[in-house]
Formats: sequence, structure tokens, C-alpha cells
Amino acid sequence: MKSELGLIREIRGLAGQSDPAVIRGIGDDCAVIRPASGLLQLISTDALVENVHFDLGWHPPMQLGRKAASVNISDIAAMAGTPRFAFLAAALPPQTDDAWITSFFEGFRQVLAEHRVLLLGGDTVKSPGPLMFTVTVLGEVAEGEICYRSGARPGDLILASGPLGSAAAGLAACRAGIPVNDSRFRQIIDCHLDPLARVALGRLLGRSGVVHAMLDSSDGLATDISHICEESGCGAVIEADLLPIGAETVAAARELDFDPLHLAVSGGEDYQLLFTAAAAEATRLLTLCEKELRQTPVVIGRIVEGKGVVLEEKRGGRKDITFKGYDHFKK
Amino acid sequence: MKSELGLIREIRGLAGQSDPAVIRGIGDDCAVIRPASGLLQLISTDALVENVHFDLGWHPPMQLGRKAASVNISDIAAMAGTPRFAFLAAALPPQTDDAWITSFFEGFRQVLAEHRVLLLGGDTVKSPGPLMFTVTVLGEVAEGEICYRSGARPGDLILASGPLGSAAAGLAACRAGIPVNDSRFRQIIDCHLDPLARVALGRLLGRSGVVHAMLDSSDGLATDISHICEESGCGAVIEADLLPIGAETVAAARELDFDPLHLAVSGGEDYQLLFTAAAAEATRLLTLCEKELRQTPVVIGRIVEGKGVVLEEKRGGRKDITFKGYDHFKK
Repeated sequence: MKSELGLIREIRGLAGQSDPAVIRGIGDDCAVIRPASGLLQLISTDALVENVHFDLGWHPPMQLGRKAASVNISDIAAMAGTPRFAFLAAALPPQTDDAWITSFFEGFRQVLAEHRVLLLGGDTVKSPGPLMFTVTVLGEVAEGEICYRSGARPGDLILASGPLGSAAAGLAACRAGIPVNDSRFRQIIDCHLDPLARVALGRLLGRSGVVHAMLDSSDGLATDISHICEESGCGAVIEADLLPIGAETVAAARELDFDPLHLAVSGGEDYQLLFTAAAAEATRLLTLCEKELRQTPVVIGRIVEGKGVVLEEKRGGRKDITFKGYDHFKK
Repeated sequence: MKSELGLIREIRGLAGQSDPAVIRGIGDDCAVIRPASGLLQLISTDALVENVHFDLGWHPPMQLGRKAASVNISDIAAMAGTPRFAFLAAALPPQTDDAWITSFFEGFRQVLAEHRVLLLGGDTVKSPGPLMFTVTVLGEVAEGEICYRSGARPGDLILASGPLGSAAAGLAACRAGIPVNDSRFRQIIDCHLDPLARVALGRLLGRSGVVHAMLDSSDGLATDISHICEESGCGAVIEADLLPIGAETVAAARELDFDPLHLAVSGGEDYQLLFTAAAAEATRLLTLCEKELRQTPVVIGRIVEGKGVVLEEKRGGRKDITFKGYDHFKK
């Protein structure tokens, strides 16, 4: 493997073009920036660990690099912010292949470039065990546009920016040994390997001024909506029949014998935006998304008085799904 | 081990008192702050990996938690900044003992409290291998007070805030099986287990307006001074006989059969501030440090034209030590 200095030079090479807000990028004890005056700053840190968050058996390095960037940028999107700067700490086993590292960094750099995010620093260390990446992203947002988890109100509709359970279905397909380029499952496998951070949609929703609460779906719908309920002091009812589930997820479910509804409720890592707005504003909001971004969020339930998250099925079943999403520590 | 939510609650409990600059701390997709207007912002990320950066065989969790905070805060000190906010990503093996985790967090919290730094977020994930902690610290500094690595000029004196090689000597003692509470080696073992971030000194040096370049000694003097030379476009001469080496380091060197000078030059993790200033300002600077903080930095060499770092010994030896400090990837 490359030397530490070699790696640092490689990371410096990713740092990209300059920005008037950046006083110093990589190369000193700290990065130095001049924060945008009048804006709030957003900061998010996420760790990705080999064999917990990704499996090198099927995850190509380029897509893994992209994912490491996207999942953190998604946290900025979830608050309606604009991502600006990234920091990458990489713990690499000594036997890590140089070409693998270069490809990982290239994927990471691609996603930063797509969002005009600058890499300003990080750390490369040796790992005697798994590969691990910790990414910190800084973003910014106007105070009047920020969307917290805590603003949901009884009567709000709950919306999702797109299909749920796709990433979990893609993961299940990979685990079952289906090749990552299998054309039947290309979309769901891509959702798992290379999820999108929905920055433009998040910005639009923030600017709309009518979104009460928002987050990105990372731990599974049940847990994610539980977070909104807990922070907002309310409950939620999710209607099973409204959940957007993609055709490939249904096909994979049939072939691999799992329940697509279970994946949509409990599967994590879709990074769809989940948000609430007053019922009276929903039509205007959907029109805005359609007109500006050609995207159509889907109503999946409603915020209610009380607490907890209930899944309602058409045939009359009601199930408490509060915090029934993915727990990284669950055995 | 605790559940993920249990850990998140524990981390939230560390978050401490509020601050008018903090709009949201832990509990949303991102932390939200209002950056101080008119100040530059400093950002640093460092990773600590079990069996690379620390050994649980002798490193008590409380001291390890303290060190995880201190080494990152030290990066802010190295630029003359004030640390403000911290983020902690912890990757924990499932068998990690709850009491161990609580003690680690308590140590981490202590150091944050000592520096009035607020914990605003992080991530807790499972590790199938070593423990790993990645810490990100944000700080701030006035534009006129910041000290980069890049400002050194030929003719400058090079100063160190205190003894060099102590942490490496402490590490050597621990590796040799000397108990961490052995009274003969208490100081050097403390330097290894629980290093100090020299924030007050860094601030004083920045405010003095006469420091040209500064960093904290983390990779060993040889490599650290090489960084200053590379960034400043100059060379350096270190005088071996001027290097401050503590009595315990000398005693440990005798007992454990290593060369104290080698540790002072190549041993990392002392987190002393290394800085340069014009020779004409040095006396005033030393008086200031003595008067304000009762600390006495030591002149250890000088910046020269050219490049590279040379170690000069009294008996006439000259040795190129450019980048001869610790490399995390060295076999």
C-alpha cells in the first residue's frame, strides 16, 4: 500500500477547485474557512465500517466511495441545506490494493464534484481490521428555510420522495449472490451500492416554506418516522397500501422469498426524504416538485396526536412499528 | 453492549450546557450552529484505531476518552484557535463492556468541559474488528491571530513548548510491561496516555502577533518540522543539544535501552506546540509566556534558506532528518 504521505498527496489531489470561502484547505493542522455571513451552518458525521455497512464481496470501490460521500451529503439535504465542505478519515488495512484506494477516492470525488462540495481535510490511518471511513460534511442554509425533525403537527400529511425498501432489496439480492450487474435488479442494486443524496429536492422543500419536519430515510421508515414523532411530540399513522414499492423490489421479493412491505417499513439506507406538511399545502407542494424537478413525492400517512408509529393495512390490521427499523447493534 | 439508541442517549447526556451559537445539538440529521461573525472557522478530523494508536492492554478507558478529545483540540490550539464544538464517531465491537464505554465517554466529556467545548453530534456504529474513534473539532480564531505552518522565514528561531520524546518514552515503558501507575515513570506514561492540548499557550502565541509558523508535534519533531519547512519553502537546523528531554525519559532510556535523542527527534504524540519567530522577538515572546502562563518554551533550532531538516550535534555531526518521524503506514 502507498505510504501515508503518498495517500495524503492523493487526497490533496482530490481537493478540487478553490472557493473564496476557503482560506486553507488540506495541508495544515486544520482547514480554515470563512463561514457565510447570515446563514446557519450544518454539520454531520457518519461512519461506514466494512462488513457492517458495506461488503467488499460485491461493493465496487468506486460505488463505495460515492456512497461514503452521498450518505453524509444526504444529511445536509435532509435539513434543506446546501453541502459545502467535506472531511474524510479513512482507516485502511495495510494490504489494501492501491488501485482499490484510487478507485474509492475517485468515486468519493465524483459525488463531491456533482454537489460542488470541496474536500478540505481528513486523516488516513492504518486499520488492523476492517476498512472504515468517517465522513464529516459541512453545509449551510438560511434560517427561514431549515427543516428540522421536530416541526411535525397533528393533521400533517407524511410524504416520501420516492420508493422505500429498494436499497434493502438490493442488499438482499447481493447477499443472495445475484451479480451486481444483473439487469433484472439493476435499479435496486444501484440503490444499495450508490444511493443518491436528494439535495435539490431538499432545497426546494426548504424554500417552499410549508414543510414542517423532514429527515432522510436511513434507518428504515419505522425508525425514521419514530424520530420525527419523538422530536415533534406526536404520533404517526403509515398506510401500508400507500407505500411506494418499486417493481424490482416486488420481483426480488418473489424470487428471494421476502416480504416487500417488511423491507419498505424496516429496511434502511434508501436516503429518500421523508417530510410532513399541512394537508392543505400538499397539493401545492406536489405541483412545485413536479414543475421544478419533475419529481413526485408520495403521501404515505399522517401525523396524529399521541405518540408512536402505527402501520395501518387496508384489510384492517394495525401494528405498532415504533422504532422497528434497522438497529446497527441488534444481534 | 448497550443498544444503539441507548448509546445515543448516553452521548446526548454528555452534550452539556447550552450555548447561544448552538441552534440544534444532537438529535437531528445535522447539528446546527450560527458561526461567529467576523471570525475564521477551524475544522480538524482525526481517527484513533485500536492497536494502531492505542493499546487496550494498558490504556484505561477514561484516559483514552481524554486523549481522543485532546489530540483533536490540539489541532485547533496549533492554529492559535479556540475550540468550540466536537463530533464523535465511535465504532465499537459488540463485546465492548458497558462500564468501559461509560468510562471512555466520561474521559472524553471531561476534556471537552475543561476547554468549554460542546459535543454536538456523532455516530455510533458496530465494529467487527478494532475499536475506532473519529473526532471532528470546530474552532474559531480572529484572522489576524491565526498561525499557519507556512509562515516560517529564514532567520527565525524554532521553539518547542516543552519536552519532546516523553510520550514515545511512556509508550516504550508501557510496551515493556511497566505498570501505568509506576511512580518512576508517571509523567512520561501520562504524556502517552493523556496528553494535553495546549490551547491557552496557542491563543497567547497567536495574540502575540509575532509567531510566523506553528503546529503541534504529533508525528515526531523530524516530520513535524519538515511540514513547516515544506509549507514555508525553507529549511531548518535542529540543535540536538538544545532539545528538551525530560529526566524520566532519560531514566527510561537507560532502563529500557533506547536512545533518548532518537525519541525526541522521531517519537510522536507529544502535542507540544512547535513554532517559529524572528530572533529579535524571541525574548519578548518568552517573557510573555512566562508572565501570562508560567510556561517557558525552549529554542531548539533555526529556520534557514534551502530545504530539508538537519540535526546538528555539538561534536560536529550533521544528519538529514527530513520526514524521519513516525509514519503510520511504515511496516
